[in-house]
Amino acid sequence: MRTETQMKNALQAYVDAYNRNDLAALLALYSDDATVEDPYGTPAKVGKLAIEDFYRDAMLSGAVLRLSAPIRGSMGDSAAMAFEAVVNTPQGEMRVRVIDLMTFNEAGLITSMRAYFGESDIETAH
Amino acid sequence: MRTETQMKNALQAYVDAYNRNDLAALLALYSDDATVEDPYGTPAKVGKLAIEDFYRDAMLSGAVLRLSAPIRGSMGDSAAMAFEAVVNTPQGEMRVRVIDLMTFNEAGLITSMRAYFGESDIETAH
Repeated sequence: MRTETQMKNALQAYVDAYNRNDLAALLALYSDDATVEDPYGTPAKVGKLAIEDFYRDAMLSGAVLRLSAPIRGSMGDSAAMAFEAVVNTPQGEMRVRVIDLMTFNEAGLITSMRAYFGESDIETAH
Repeated sequence: MRTETQMKNALQAYVDAYNRNDLAALLALYSDDATVEDPYGTPAKVGKLAIEDFYRDAMLSGAVLRLSAPIRGSMGDSAAMAFEAVVNTPQGEMRVRVIDLMTFNEAGLITSMRAYFGESDIETAH
């Protein structure tokens, strides 16, 4: 039975796995039939293989995720977190302000992820 | 045509209207057929009348909403924000850590609101 603590721990594990470029640990948080909309508003990546491709590319950017506030649980099947993705580019540091929303199955695996950020949430320091 | 700026402004207007107990201004942000799930995981309030009842009661609590981080837009029909609701109760100050997710119609009105917080996001100072 999925608990609020389990969902919050999964989001923290997601951030930690991302930040140490641990693709396997990150993928292990997802169910086989999960969907990823990152950013929300673009076509979903569907299933583990598509999700693996997405994160392999994403990790190449060297982005570091930093929580902006404590992870939120819910009274339902979801948890959410506000964070910044910080990327060092040849043009300088880029920051993307994001809120990720994840839904979970009964086993505590992520079944969907949606990343909310728009053009106005991307900041480049020159 | 709904823009990212318009959606973010609506979320800021929501916080401001809530904090000055301006029920009319808050309701004006919603479409007539909007749904509110607050907290997410409980039955939705459907339509303006049910939503009005909900916020009239909520405002009686005297809660103040404080953004935890800048409001996020999206590449789609949504915007989201992390905040704390601070309530003074006879037992002391209560803080609820929340992420609100709102979807919008083309006219820029809120069509759905979901509030993500769980029991573990409620803190009471004694």
